[in-house]
Amino acid sequence: MTTATLVKQRSLLGLKELSKEEISSILDRAAYWEASSNKVEPVQQGKFVANMFFENSTRTRFSFEVAEKRLGTEVLNFSAAVSSVQKGESIYDTVRTLESMGIDAGVIRLKPIGVLAELAQKIKVPLINAGDGNNEHPTQALLDLYTMRKQFGELKGLTVSIIGDVQHSRVARSNLYALQKFGVNVRFCAPETMKAAELDVPYVSMAEALRSDVVMMLRVQLERHESGILSSAESYREQFGLTEERAATLAPHTIIMHPAPINRDVEIDDALVEHPQSRIFPQMANGVPIRMAVIERALA
Amino acid sequence: MTTATLVKQRSLLGLKELSKEEISSILDRAAYWEASSNKVEPVQQGKFVANMFFENSTRTRFSFEVAEKRLGTEVLNFSAAVSSVQKGESIYDTVRTLESMGIDAGVIRLKPIGVLAELAQKIKVPLINAGDGNNEHPTQALLDLYTMRKQFGELKGLTVSIIGDVQHSRVARSNLYALQKFGVNVRFCAPETMKAAELDVPYVSMAEALRSDVVMMLRVQLERHESGILSSAESYREQFGLTEERAATLAPHTIIMHPAPINRDVEIDDALVEHPQSRIFPQMANGVPIRMAVIERALA
Amino acid sequence: MTTATLVKQRSLLGLKELSKEEISSILDRAAYWEASSNKVEPVQQGKFVANMFFENSTRTRFSFEVAEKRLGTEVLNFSAAVSSVQKGESIYDTVRTLESMGIDAGVIRLKPIGVLAELAQKIKVPLINAGDGNNEHPTQALLDLYTMRKQFGELKGLTVSIIGDVQHSRVARSNLYALQKFGVNVRFCAPETMKAAELDVPYVSMAEALRSDVVMMLRVQLERHESGILSSAESYREQFGLTEERAATLAPHTIIMHPAPINRDVEIDDALVEHPQSRIFPQMANGVPIRMAVIERALA
Repeated sequence: MTTATLVKQRSLLGLKELSKEEISSILDRAAYWEASSNKVEPVQQGKFVANMFFENSTRTRFSFEVAEKRLGTEVLNFSAAVSSVQKGESIYDTVRTLESMGIDAGVIRLKPIGVLAELAQKIKVPLINAGDGNNEHPTQALLDLYTMRKQFGELKGLTVSIIGDVQHSRVARSNLYALQKFGVNVRFCAPETMKAAELDVPYVSMAEALRSDVVMMLRVQLERHESGILSSAESYREQFGLTEERAATLAPHTIIMHPAPINRDVEIDDALVEHPQSRIFPQMANGVPIRMAVIERALA
Repeated sequence: MTTATLVKQRSLLGLKELSKEEISSILDRAAYWEASSNKVEPVQQGKFVANMFFENSTRTRFSFEVAEKRLGTEVLNFSAAVSSVQKGESIYDTVRTLESMGIDAGVIRLKPIGVLAELAQKIKVPLINAGDGNNEHPTQALLDLYTMRKQFGELKGLTVSIIGDVQHSRVARSNLYALQKFGVNVRFCAPETMKAAELDVPYVSMAEALRSDVVMMLRVQLERHESGILSSAESYREQFGLTEERAATLAPHTIIMHPAPINRDVEIDDALVEHPQSRIFPQMANGVPIRMAVIERALA
Repeated sequence: MTTATLVKQRSLLGLKELSKEEISSILDRAAYWEASSNKVEPVQQGKFVANMFFENSTRTRFSFEVAEKRLGTEVLNFSAAVSSVQKGESIYDTVRTLESMGIDAGVIRLKPIGVLAELAQKIKVPLINAGDGNNEHPTQALLDLYTMRKQFGELKGLTVSIIGDVQHSRVARSNLYALQKFGVNVRFCAPETMKAAELDVPYVSMAEALRSDVVMMLRVQLERHESGILSSAESYREQFGLTEERAATLAPHTIIMHPAPINRDVEIDDALVEHPQSRIFPQMANGVPIRMAVIERALA
């Protein structure tokens, strides 16, 4: 096998192309790290990981940073908002620059379509996708699967409803690709203008969506939908929000998920965020061991 | 004792509620760290501390960061100016997110009144107040007490004049609460529009204020006082500034303090900042061992 | 020798005053670090280095950060864009503040003319110039010399042409000062409006400039030259850009250099950036061992 192929295998660009076995092995390794009694186990000491965020992020960036530091790596944080992109430098030049300086892996979030795939061809160190436009967000989906597996023991046979702006959601796509490999019944629920035409997934009503093992709410960005009946937070909430009333109809075993950041009282009522059936903050906790497993795999 | 109570005891929200004995014990531990010959003594290795600044800061943030690194903790720096608050995420969600990721303590600066007290009820890890609106700034006052104790041997019986915008000053409040516990004679000197009506402290003239063991100048934010005779830097300086002329009248044992950042030639003349009687940069130096002691206490 | 003199010797403010022997010794030490098989060798553990960037930077800041972490130092990153300069705090106060907190060395980039020299008089820890207005950028020139020496074995007798806006270029100045000490034949090539009147260097035509061992292209900032024939990227490229056509006329042993960030298709054609004769990304790689050597020298 060529070195380039090996590097590509250690990269994590998306879940669409990842086998069920590889996904399971990441989930298993995350379970190991979650159970670890030492917060820091510097098994990757002496390695450099660069977090390169060409799009704002708090949650994902810190989750990666904690994961990297728990593994003992040196961390470089690049954030475009305060950096050289102001000088018009391209994403490629920045990544190539950090590669030249000797990083061992790069975590990258970016917006423009197709750029990550192109980078992965040209850059010689493993890259981890931390959010790629509307395409994929694999570590988010992995932590979602981890959360579900932890809850239900196994994924096979579960029914998962993903509700909201699936059209623009990389979280929905990565979850869909991964969950289907495990025999999960995935359904979408979305207003007409937020449906993803290219994905072969059944759309269901809110009432039907609530009859699931997992109800996954997506963050809605109302600024993208300026006119029409969904233009206001209240009308969105009324039609597609997880309100307290609707939550009261959930089966007792059903869990509520959300990738965050949350628009409280828009796609989910404030009082539900830390509801006993909500797994929103546990999802964030699970993100750390998942990312430890993904970084370890990249540095292997 | 419940775990929640223990955590609360390891938090540092303000000095108002802290006993004289607890304050003394922090000052003593700071003296230990100041005398330490090793810059880094990683006694807290494997712990994670998040610095969460929802208000700009250079001095305080770096002081905490140096303290944390000297203790060997892993440091996460969150600054709202470049982060998710742009997405409208709330302070609570950010703190809760970092808590979910496994931080062992959080250092927090924020503006809105009452939010810190609320957070302390909801968050399970110890929180250290690094500046809470107009309320308290306990680590600043601790380093101020430390600086005075170092200078005069003991605090009891000292006269301390705090001069400037006491109304908006968390530094003045934290100093007042702490100094009074030690039997220090605290007086304020301020223009009418900058007096703190709710605090029971005598106001004195500039001439009288200068007859003190410690003359503590506060940063004035003239943009808060747009009209009237104090609206210009010159008129403020003339009436309430520590000018070279006024400094010449200080007793030789009197020391000059300022929490910084300084408006040179407004509340204090440029030439006085590094005057032999000034302790302004030593205050900053003392901030590091004080914060080491406070973080250690939080992680205990 | 006084302590002040010793500190000054460990500072790196520019190459104009540095002896040929000192430069060689930095290049030699960089070669040691480049050859080191361990990425991190914490020989400077327990030391604190502050990177204080009062001007935006990605490349240089990360290069220093990687160098510092490879040596095991604790790193503090100050960036003015997101920090206290917003409160009008002066550069001096910021540097003095970090000095008070116990840093062992400071890396500094700033714009105002003469401030660095003044700081070096007042600050007691060694300072490393990471870009000083239009004056000097010594670590860039050191990595350039290192790249040339690696390529050609020795510097003496080489012909180096520096092409572009030499007037505003600290890179050109630092290279000139250093290269002349080694007996390198330095020539400039620049439009009339970009010539540096005070430097005693021959100007040559583009055709002549291309007949060199090293062709060093400078970044052009067209926003500085708003009118005239050079105001457009195309006209600049036509007259002073390294186009593919021009590159085809280079001798096979000639190397192409550029300090980056690059304006692709302005001063250099996109296709040439990773051309076999280009050393642009290797320059960035060489920056790390050079800065390790410079920081080690400062902390000695």
